Amino acid sequence: MKAVVLLSGGLDSTVTLAKAVADGCEVTALSFRYGQRHGRELRSAEAVCGRYGVKHAIMDMDMTSFRSALTRKEIDVPEDRDGDLSSEIPPTYVPARNIIFLSAAAGLAESIDAERIYIGANAVDYSGYPDCRPEFFEAFGEMLAKGTKTGVEGRPVKIMTPILHSTKADIVRLGKALNAPLELTWSCYNGGEKACGRCDSCRIRLKGFEEAGCRDEIEYR
Amino acid sequence: MKAVVLLSGGLDSTVTLAKAVADGCEVTALSFRYGQRHGRELRSAEAVCGRYGVKHAIMDMDMTSFRSALTRKEIDVPEDRDGDLSSEIPPTYVPARNIIFLSAAAGLAESIDAERIYIGANAVDYSGYPDCRPEFFEAFGEMLAKGTKTGVEGRPVKIMTPILHSTKADIVRLGKALNAPLELTWSCYNGGEKACGRCDSCRIRLKGFEEAGCRDEIEYR
Repeated sequence: MKAVVLLSGGLDSTVTLAKAVADGCEVTALSFRYGQRHGRELRSAEAVCGRYGVKHAIMDMDMTSFRSALTRKEIDVPEDRDGDLSSEIPPTYVPARNIIFLSAAAGLAESIDAERIYIGANAVDYSGYPDCRPEFFEAFGEMLAKGTKTGVEGRPVKIMTPILHSTKADIVRLGKALNAPLELTWSCYNGGEKACGRCDSCRIRLKGFEEAGCRDEIEYR
Repeated sequence: MKAVVLLSGGLDSTVTLAKAVADGCEVTALSFRYGQRHGRELRSAEAVCGRYGVKHAIMDMDMTSFRSALTRKEIDVPEDRDGDLSSEIPPTYVPARNIIFLSAAAGLAESIDAERIYIGANAVDYSGYPDCRPEFFEAFGEMLAKGTKTGVEGRPVKIMTPILHSTKADIVRLGKALNAPLELTWSCYNGGEKACGRCDSCRIRLKGFEEAGCRDEIEYR
């Protein structure tokens, strides 16, 4: 059975890919390339795919002009600014992010006759995000049943959320049990060769490894 | 009230934009730029936005590597080919196309506090497309109610399909009644400065104008 796995290169999506492989699926991983993001995470995604020998589709989805069109007239651009412009970076939260990613995955799935889409969404760490809730994934599946060729034919692509209710420690334990290459993953919000160990994402990751009683083998600064 | 209008630059989406304006909406148009497509349609979209003085967001969504990942191992590449490689162009049909476009529109709508998304989908000319059927748009709306911040707050973005049940002649008549700049639109599958008049899209358009008793003012070869 074929499956599309949404793969960012982080811990959660890598463990999700490992689960898809363990479920016996022939996996095609799908990653997205944004104009504004450092490429470190994507290199991890490539390394994970290389380790598993699975196909890797990368979709360019540059929202730069999309964003600038949003902000051009909405937000006053501060004047007389010198030096550090890093505060200009737009918030990392993208409305409808999982909806957009799952939609692209649905297009890919239908193109290659995949029966499943795996997504490493998590309702524990991201309980405030509407598009990480079980009700959303159910509604998305129903929408695919109505709006895709395979859906109308009575065999809609199934959305798989294996770590939806897992804590970070659960995810680490599952990854270890499946022998997933956790040492290839990247969680840090910052780029560079070594993780910072201080951002929210690094801290949640390190706490998860600690609670699972495992050593995190990636390098920290 | 703000609205996002999916605008390809063709006849249907331009009339849909005209309807959104007539409905009293403050419009932000959203177009997509594909790596593989001629840019003629997008120039029409820009001209239409210029005429109405509405904002225009263009989202780059290059599926080249996405496609190549699909086809790399699936399709045998013919060997010993010389000359014309145009038959290598992948089919224009993209599975889940409207799902992907509407998802991006939902992200944009939530970003700018738009209450509506207008899409020029048509269930008459495209009756075989699952993602052009009323049931699909209803299910998509329900999914947004579950998976977006505004949805959870009880005011989901509304999907508007003003020409869903219209014939091409109806669409031309509506466009004329709304004084839409039909002469700026582009329907031809081919690029260039003048429409070919012979492809399916040109023929459907010309027949629509004829049945509506109007002259199509774009130039044909």
